[in-house]
Amino acid sequence: MTTDTTPVTVVGLGLMGQALASTFLRNGHPTTVWNRTAAKATELVAQGARLADSPADAVAASPLVVVCVSNYDAVHELLDPLGDALDGRVLVNLTSGTSEAARQTAEWVTQRGGYLDGAIMAVPPAIGTAEATVFYSGPQAVFDRHESTLRVLGAGTTYLGADYGLSSLHDVALLGAMWGVANSFLQGAALVGTAGVPASTFASIAGPLIGTVNGWLPDLARQIDKGDYAARDATIDTHLGTMEHLVRESESVGVNADLPRLVKALAGRAVADGHGGSDYAAMIEQFRKPSGSRP
Amino acid sequence: MTTDTTPVTVVGLGLMGQALASTFLRNGHPTTVWNRTAAKATELVAQGARLADSPADAVAASPLVVVCVSNYDAVHELLDPLGDALDGRVLVNLTSGTSEAARQTAEWVTQRGGYLDGAIMAVPPAIGTAEATVFYSGPQAVFDRHESTLRVLGAGTTYLGADYGLSSLHDVALLGAMWGVANSFLQGAALVGTAGVPASTFASIAGPLIGTVNGWLPDLARQIDKGDYAARDATIDTHLGTMEHLVRESESVGVNADLPRLVKALAGRAVADGHGGSDYAAMIEQFRKPSGSRP
Ligand SMILES: NC(=O)c1ccc[n+]([C@@H]2O[C@H](COP(=O)([O-])OP(=O)(O)OC[C@H]3O[C@@H](n4cnc5c(N)ncnc54)[C@H](OP(=O)(O)O)[C@@H]3O)[C@@H](O)[C@H]2O)c1
Ligand SMILES: NC(=O)c1ccc[n+]([C@@H]2O[C@H](COP(=O)([O-])OP(=O)(O)OC[C@H]3O[C@@H](n4cnc5c(N)ncnc54)[C@H](OP(=O)(O)O)[C@@H]3O)[C@@H](O)[C@H]2O)c1
Repeated sequence: MTTDTTPVTVVGLGLMGQALASTFLRNGHPTTVWNRTAAKATELVAQGARLADSPADAVAASPLVVVCVSNYDAVHELLDPLGDALDGRVLVNLTSGTSEAARQTAEWVTQRGGYLDGAIMAVPPAIGTAEATVFYSGPQAVFDRHESTLRVLGAGTTYLGADYGLSSLHDVALLGAMWGVANSFLQGAALVGTAGVPASTFASIAGPLIGTVNGWLPDLARQIDKGDYAARDATIDTHLGTMEHLVRESESVGVNADLPRLVKALAGRAVADGHGGSDYAAMIEQFRKPSGSRP
Repeated sequence: MTTDTTPVTVVGLGLMGQALASTFLRNGHPTTVWNRTAAKATELVAQGARLADSPADAVAASPLVVVCVSNYDAVHELLDPLGDALDGRVLVNLTSGTSEAARQTAEWVTQRGGYLDGAIMAVPPAIGTAEATVFYSGPQAVFDRHESTLRVLGAGTTYLGADYGLSSLHDVALLGAMWGVANSFLQGAALVGTAGVPASTFASIAGPLIGTVNGWLPDLARQIDKGDYAARDATIDTHLGTMEHLVRESESVGVNADLPRLVKALAGRAVADGHGGSDYAAMIEQFRKPSGSRP
């Protein structure tokens, strides 16, 4: 329970919206809710929420309005008819979408009130706990004004910067890293699994290696930021040779070779671009440009 | 310096073979060397190595023979003419290759002497240090007999099991994990880079996330080993929805979308196989089978 009792409105009471609203309620914030399907508000009303009659009524009720619906099309279906109702409100949009959609929504909302775009890196049961990370982007002053209220949603409340697109970009960038770790672990587990090695045994070997590689990222990032691709331990040519082993091994034992082939194709393009003698950091240039065609 | 002074032969004096031979010498092992191009032995001879006249002479000189050449074709060019010279020797093959090549080589060598297949997870300057991991697979008794000698090559000397293919499988499985972490970091750095975020800033956010995901792998592995795909936090359907954001974001800001598309395609195939409601652990089934076609 905080001493901050800013009234809050939550629009959209899906799995996530319900978790957001009940967390605000639990922390002593007078909470107004609205959902297209009103039945989803029943439990929240029992917890003390006020159910608004319309989106306009909901927005009018609080200086801080959190929207969390399926996608940006739904956001616009909700907001576009509101017009001046947003005057002087701060809208915090926690709906997932692209950075482009975030910037466009900001352009529209900020003609009326304040706007923060956000991204939730947590499942609904984690909302309000130490495990929940929520990213925000938009004007620092707007974030600062409502930080203490927003922080009840998760200890990992993080302000990323003024560019409204930053939350969406970080959201998918980090999810991509999550899938990248999981998928390359699964690829390895499938490979050693052909010799009867349990995934758990492989996890005990792969875990420390992934930890080590994770520890290299700050150096890799520094090289990227400096544009310094001088090879340290191994060149992309050397990597490419070993990637060929990964592809051949995957094919020869009959596991999926799509990920190995893509890994190799990306490095092959770096070599074709003249980076065979460069450090792996030079691979950033492949990721920075759209691929001509699907691999 | 160990008290073990087993004589060792090193065949193949490329970058890696030279590092192996000089590490054996430094640790007091009488070391015989041979290389197709004899000039590469000069420095080792100055360090106390004996240069053999022929591969057969080299193999005859020591009970333990380490081979480290470019590939398995080179291994066979060297070994096939030797015939009985291998009688009673233990051959340790540290050349990179596939598990299939390792098992075939073992079949041939073990008609004459002992065989261990190995894989070096280190660059030449790391040989002999705490950083070097070297995997071995083959009969436990053969490994045990020469473990103290082999251990001078790196503190991370690891016996994986009797199946001769295990070293090669673990080699590429772990390298794949390394590229998986690096590439998904680069994908993320490219994405947030479009909003001017330095790679170093992204590394400071991605590092803890990758550490967290790494911490999930033992649980993921347990689910895989049990074949228990009951969803915990999120279903593959949910992941697939967010993967679509990663693809659209990458396309919309103009960074490479190949890796995101593959991530999504693999999950899409799991859904097509009826695993939409399953935990991410069910993705192992996609990695276990050859893909019908390139993505
Ligand atoms: N759940 C998670 O684990 C999670 C994690 C991180 C981020 N997110 C993001 O949070 C957002 C909401 O997710 P969720 O899990 O709460 O989804 P959900 O359970 O499917 O709920 C969707 C919500 O959007 C509303 N909605 C959809 N279309 C609408 C429209 N045209 N007009 C008005 N309302 C509309 C729905 O209203 P009805 O009830 O009337 O259908 C419902 O309240 C998504 O962007 C999601 O990506 C979710
Ligand atoms: N370097 C690394 O960072 C590293 C790391 C892990 C694993 N490895 C593995 O270690 C092995 C050797 O790598 P390296 O870096 O030492 O390679 P390298 O510097 O290119 O040396 C290759 C060696 O193989 C010999 N060779 C090639 N074809 C031959 C043939 N037909 N007959 C006889 N000898 C032949 C070469 O003899 P000549 O001198 O006469 O050409 C040379 O001694 C490879 O399998 C590599 O994948 C290397």
